[in-house]
Amino acid sequence: MKTRRTQNLMTVALACMVVFMTTAAQAADPLSSWNDGPTKQAILEFVKTTTTQGSLQFVPPEARIATFDQDGTLWVEHPMYTQVVYCLERVPALVKEKPELAKIEPFKTVLSGNREAMAKLSQDDLMKILVATLTGMSVDDFNVEAKKWISEAKDPRWKRPYTELTYQPMQEVLKYLRANGYKTYIVTGGGQDFVRVYAEQVYGIPLEQVVGTAGGTKYGYGKDGKPFLTKEPKLLLNDNNAGKPEGIHMMIGRRPVAAFGNSTGDRQMLEYTKAGDGARLAMIVLHDDAEREYAYGPAQGLPDTKVGTFTQALFDEAKKNGWTVISMKNDWKVIFPFDSK
Amino acid sequence: MKTRRTQNLMTVALACMVVFMTTAAQAADPLSSWNDGPTKQAILEFVKTTTTQGSLQFVPPEARIATFDQDGTLWVEHPMYTQVVYCLERVPALVKEKPELAKIEPFKTVLSGNREAMAKLSQDDLMKILVATLTGMSVDDFNVEAKKWISEAKDPRWKRPYTELTYQPMQEVLKYLRANGYKTYIVTGGGQDFVRVYAEQVYGIPLEQVVGTAGGTKYGYGKDGKPFLTKEPKLLLNDNNAGKPEGIHMMIGRRPVAAFGNSTGDRQMLEYTKAGDGARLAMIVLHDDAEREYAYGPAQGLPDTKVGTFTQALFDEAKKNGWTVISMKNDWKVIFPFDSK
Repeated sequence: MKTRRTQNLMTVALACMVVFMTTAAQAADPLSSWNDGPTKQAILEFVKTTTTQGSLQFVPPEARIATFDQDGTLWVEHPMYTQVVYCLERVPALVKEKPELAKIEPFKTVLSGNREAMAKLSQDDLMKILVATLTGMSVDDFNVEAKKWISEAKDPRWKRPYTELTYQPMQEVLKYLRANGYKTYIVTGGGQDFVRVYAEQVYGIPLEQVVGTAGGTKYGYGKDGKPFLTKEPKLLLNDNNAGKPEGIHMMIGRRPVAAFGNSTGDRQMLEYTKAGDGARLAMIVLHDDAEREYAYGPAQGLPDTKVGTFTQALFDEAKKNGWTVISMKNDWKVIFPFDSK
Repeated sequence: MKTRRTQNLMTVALACMVVFMTTAAQAADPLSSWNDGPTKQAILEFVKTTTTQGSLQFVPPEARIATFDQDGTLWVEHPMYTQVVYCLERVPALVKEKPELAKIEPFKTVLSGNREAMAKLSQDDLMKILVATLTGMSVDDFNVEAKKWISEAKDPRWKRPYTELTYQPMQEVLKYLRANGYKTYIVTGGGQDFVRVYAEQVYGIPLEQVVGTAGGTKYGYGKDGKPFLTKEPKLLLNDNNAGKPEGIHMMIGRRPVAAFGNSTGDRQMLEYTKAGDGARLAMIVLHDDAEREYAYGPAQGLPDTKVGTFTQALFDEAKKNGWTVISMKNDWKVIFPFDSK
């Protein structure tokens, strides 16, 4: 009797241990929103090989730079870049200040609220709207306006603040890299000042680690004699395509060890990163999940869209150069932080 | 007898304690190369008030940004900026690659070695030399060349590497601020790429925390198909005067809480820093020590020189706006790290 009782107790104890260990393993998985497979493995392997003392591919802490495109890589970019939505929604307030714009295109079309007509605006028209809504004010005034908007505006599909539409698996990568001594940077074609407004809150990335398309500012003095900076319609850095490695050199001064993108605009950043010596991680997100997010390419026969183009040529270059293609559909257990709650 | 013995022992013990405490206090003084007085006190007070939890002027860690001019603030700038020496000394190698330059001014004068004639070169001539020696090569080649030079070149007066001619008191300020959660930046009129070559070694400041005058780069591919960046003769940021706050906004995105300079080129950075809310520290080094370093102004009747001008108007603005003027002669116990050894 006693022996059987002991056996029973041991079985219970063992079962408890298994449950405990499984829970511990789950809690310890830094990439728990990623499905097991070669993509997740590539990230884990890279971090292990570059941060283990004595590893042949060890990277000293000061050189641990990881760069992330934002739109389509860290958060949703469809159907329209969030910053473009901001600019369009700023037009009424702008026209209030400058009533003469109401009769001038493209402001007239934007004021009409006709979404079909707005979708047809040319790149030149869009640029006029960007310049009018992103420049001419003080840096401080812009920050106040943009902060207010981003805290109130909502994505029409998910009916949630844009700031909640970040990809949970990428949030885990950001945290995992930082926990291993990596400095994480955003390198975005979007406006540097715009992304800086929420980067700390949304991604845990400080303002000074946001590299983006940047306009000049102009130093001057207010009526009270206090100095301030005005945002100027002068492009200093177009942080797209070749502008990404150029911006990285200017703002960071080192070649990244890891880079993440999702479109042709990220090609040169990924090439530049991967061309460095030693272990390098280059990853590119393929939006192939129409149900949970969006599906677009045209790589792999996905629909061609204007926003965030991922061509078949880029897909082929990724395969050839050893970049890892992330399939949203197959590699990600959940898409958004609110999915996992 | 016993009582007297006990008293004696206690006296010895007390004496030991006094000696121990004095030694501990000296060891603990983070600014031991500074003479006691209002200047040293201003730094200690500022750090205390901005980093003590519960202080009305507490600054959260992410906002603790301190910016330092380099030439004349962190190291010697006389008789010539170190980077200009580098450019002049690069001319022979440049002419070897491009022999046609040997007959063209200003290269002809530089090759002649005639120091008097070289001192008379115009700003335009100097700019030609800077462009010819700082651009046209790959970023990697430039780094190799500049690193080699800075490790070998010596200042003619002290017969020591330029990298040893940093001011010990300022090194202490850098370390003291960092020990209190401040991120220290160099904001220099000098070339960003040049200063990045040695900033980590000399000041403990990582590459990405060097803001300087910056030229554009151009992304391209080598014969091996590998991408690289070429330094272009295109000015992106002239990090002097109003360019300093403009560069700070672009590269850091926050107004500094503390700023250090030494010349009219730092005026706007100091104004911009001091104009922020809460506690702000603005300090400006006056070179009034002809014996241990150099004396120049023309503030306070010191000789007027071309390099690092500190006008009386700037001195008056400093006093009016509550910037602290650092007197090298009176505030610094030692000038260089090698003095204190």
